[in-house]
Amino acid sequence: MTLAFEPDDRRYLAELAEYVAIPSVSRDADADAMRRAAEWIASRIDFADPQIVETGGHPAVVGSWLGAPGAPTVLIYGHYDVQPTGSLDEWITPPFDLTPYVDEATGEERVRGRGAADDKGPVYLVVETCRQFLAQEGALPCNLRFLFEGEEEIGSPNLGSYVRTHAADLSADLVVSADGAQWRTDEPSLSIASKGLLALDITVTGANRDLHSGRYGGTVANPTHALAALLASLHDEEGRIAVDGFGDGIPALTPQRLAEIDAVAFDEEAYRADLDVPALHGEPGMSTLARLWTQPTIEVNGIAGGGAYSVIPHVASAHVTCRLVPGQRPETVARALDAHIRAHAMPGVRVEVRFEDGAVPAYTIDPGHPGIQIARDALEQVYPGEEVLLAVIAGTLPATVLFEEALGAKTMFFSFAVADEWHHAPNEFFRVRRLREGMRAWEILLRGFGATEGLGDRGLAAAGAVR
Amino acid sequence: MTLAFEPDDRRYLAELAEYVAIPSVSRDADADAMRRAAEWIASRIDFADPQIVETGGHPAVVGSWLGAPGAPTVLIYGHYDVQPTGSLDEWITPPFDLTPYVDEATGEERVRGRGAADDKGPVYLVVETCRQFLAQEGALPCNLRFLFEGEEEIGSPNLGSYVRTHAADLSADLVVSADGAQWRTDEPSLSIASKGLLALDITVTGANRDLHSGRYGGTVANPTHALAALLASLHDEEGRIAVDGFGDGIPALTPQRLAEIDAVAFDEEAYRADLDVPALHGEPGMSTLARLWTQPTIEVNGIAGGGAYSVIPHVASAHVTCRLVPGQRPETVARALDAHIRAHAMPGVRVEVRFEDGAVPAYTIDPGHPGIQIARDALEQVYPGEEVLLAVIAGTLPATVLFEEALGAKTMFFSFAVADEWHHAPNEFFRVRRLREGMRAWEILLRGFGATEGLGDRGLAAAGAVR
Repeated sequence: MTLAFEPDDRRYLAELAEYVAIPSVSRDADADAMRRAAEWIASRIDFADPQIVETGGHPAVVGSWLGAPGAPTVLIYGHYDVQPTGSLDEWITPPFDLTPYVDEATGEERVRGRGAADDKGPVYLVVETCRQFLAQEGALPCNLRFLFEGEEEIGSPNLGSYVRTHAADLSADLVVSADGAQWRTDEPSLSIASKGLLALDITVTGANRDLHSGRYGGTVANPTHALAALLASLHDEEGRIAVDGFGDGIPALTPQRLAEIDAVAFDEEAYRADLDVPALHGEPGMSTLARLWTQPTIEVNGIAGGGAYSVIPHVASAHVTCRLVPGQRPETVARALDAHIRAHAMPGVRVEVRFEDGAVPAYTIDPGHPGIQIARDALEQVYPGEEVLLAVIAGTLPATVLFEEALGAKTMFFSFAVADEWHHAPNEFFRVRRLREGMRAWEILLRGFGATEGLGDRGLAAAGAVR
Repeated sequence: MTLAFEPDDRRYLAELAEYVAIPSVSRDADADAMRRAAEWIASRIDFADPQIVETGGHPAVVGSWLGAPGAPTVLIYGHYDVQPTGSLDEWITPPFDLTPYVDEATGEERVRGRGAADDKGPVYLVVETCRQFLAQEGALPCNLRFLFEGEEEIGSPNLGSYVRTHAADLSADLVVSADGAQWRTDEPSLSIASKGLLALDITVTGANRDLHSGRYGGTVANPTHALAALLASLHDEEGRIAVDGFGDGIPALTPQRLAEIDAVAFDEEAYRADLDVPALHGEPGMSTLARLWTQPTIEVNGIAGGGAYSVIPHVASAHVTCRLVPGQRPETVARALDAHIRAHAMPGVRVEVRFEDGAVPAYTIDPGHPGIQIARDALEQVYPGEEVLLAVIAGTLPATVLFEEALGAKTMFFSFAVADEWHHAPNEFFRVRRLREGMRAWEILLRGFGATEGLGDRGLAAAGAVR
């Protein structure tokens, strides 16, 4: 028994274009756009008694279909908000006009638009699969709950209190996230971990005003110099993180895990060429993939200060994010960074460090979890002959830690976005064929959930697989 | 015989307000505002057959009154363009509304507005003095030419070709600049030197797009890190310039000159408190005033890259200006900087260095020049009992070098702005009483010029004072 999908992609692309057209940038304050996006995705789960609920920030969309007594209950998580567009000049086509095109290099059909890959496309294909179950079979194979938030791209500041307050309404054996990404297009993968996140702003203030760079030059510390020295001090000359205590708690990387990663086919030259950088760069003594999957990072996301005229600016600032790996505690990392920054502040300026709320530790799910087994089976059916890779999401999904704490449920990532689809950057795109592949995979996944004995830690405990 | 000025400042302030109201920001492209400012100041020298002349960039205003046969000819230089406002949020009152106020700390009457001190106020008072000579005495004491340019704040890119092409129409025994600034309000001063200027942009490019800071973090060089490391490398930890060859050609500072500077009353604590910095900062082993007057600088004027969200930005850039001292050649300094930047570029990024046109070396005038003697006398009469200080303009006046080359005339600075009047910054202001003091001083100066034997190098040669 399989669902019959559309003969071509026209309806799917038209509906996804409607959704992408709503500029639900959570960093902006356009409450109307956020609500319209919430309403749009709510209308697609009309079979699940959808509700648009207040969270204190942008609303969330929840719903449930519990018509499969005895079967497991799965909470499907995703988000309807998107990143800011960045510079409009860099977009080939307008960011909120979903634009089909054929990639010249690969011949792939793609659609370009903000949110196409992160996370509107991947969520759309899940709810469309559910709709087809109900249309064609009158029921879903297992019980489903839905939670689509509107603040993922700003670190989910209100999701925690909402989920904790409404834990009973969200209770599930397993959470499956339609957010995340498979790490590349030619090889099916399941993510078994994601990195944590800690964000901070550094502000360096000098004089009480911008100063003429001649009339005051050489007499006061220049905040841009002080900021540059601070930022340069975060890494050593070879790219190693140089902040004492930053890596506290990280277990040593085992030779076995390194060997596993080294066995994964990864073409560093192709990766370099795709990014068009003169060379890859990072902590020495480790392959690029090992760095990406196992190492924490400190990346400066933006710097600003002064302008292109002849002043000594009185303020310079940087936004910084750290990606954390298992073993690191955000509070400990924050303390280490704060101490480092204070110790490296140039005399003659004032340095302020502000950590953003919503820091999250890294997250992992056991590769032996029954949900992972079912998902692996689904991918093997959709991509016959391909081995399913167990990968790491080097990005951050703050909700995972929350679901474990508040609902006692593990989270599994099952997204059909691919990591190379320019998430967060201008010209974000999504591969058209993955709409259809994703729908088929979700069909098999949901049927697998319906047929299993148990999906929660209970199931794992029964299987003796809890670690 | 002295000129009678107005009984109060009302007319002066009303006229200056008209001039300040014209937003003649030369870095912007508002040709209409530039032309209106040129027309305004041209209308104030209607006694000198004013012309608005094309230069290839913003127009210049020229004029001449040559009705004093046998007397020296002096070229009065100034500029009608102003710096950009910077952040409007930081202005207490709108930048182009000249706003009178009383400074609470000093009780001084001031006027706030962009260009009030640099250079609209100081030029206004000169032309008003000339108008009063003609109105009250029917003639000026010496021959005058006028040259007010519209591109001083962008490095005078077209002034050179204009002056060289029209050298005959501009010929003069001496140039007196109404631009510049006395270095403080409680002590009359004459500037005998100004620093040179070399400006450059550094652009660091990484990947071909902004990258998700999680999904790509730790695998590529971050352009903001590379830029920070580059900028940090320009100075050592104590604030010394660390660029090999940067200081080539600078003669050793003599103990005599250092002693002269140390004899100047300079309250470092008051200077620090005015700027509200935790400490002054710069090359160690030298007083703040010695640094300001004798040392070259490298100051970063602005940095930009990415924004406050979670990307690895693909471009980061900085605007940098160097102030040069006598002995430094701009070309040599540019080569040294270029080599330093290339040597310190992080692998994995591309670094582009672009030097702006219009670099100028430092400038000096002999303290024994007859023009300096006459100016000193004028200041002693306006500020009786005060010793006139021979100071250095730590800013840059590109026109000085040009006038020496193209007209064979030295340039003397005679401005009634003060260096602390927040030139180039938000809330630029001008002290009201200096309008009147400046007019009286210019009256005495012009009378002195009319009574002297010679003002050019001929005069100096005759006096045996050429060095």
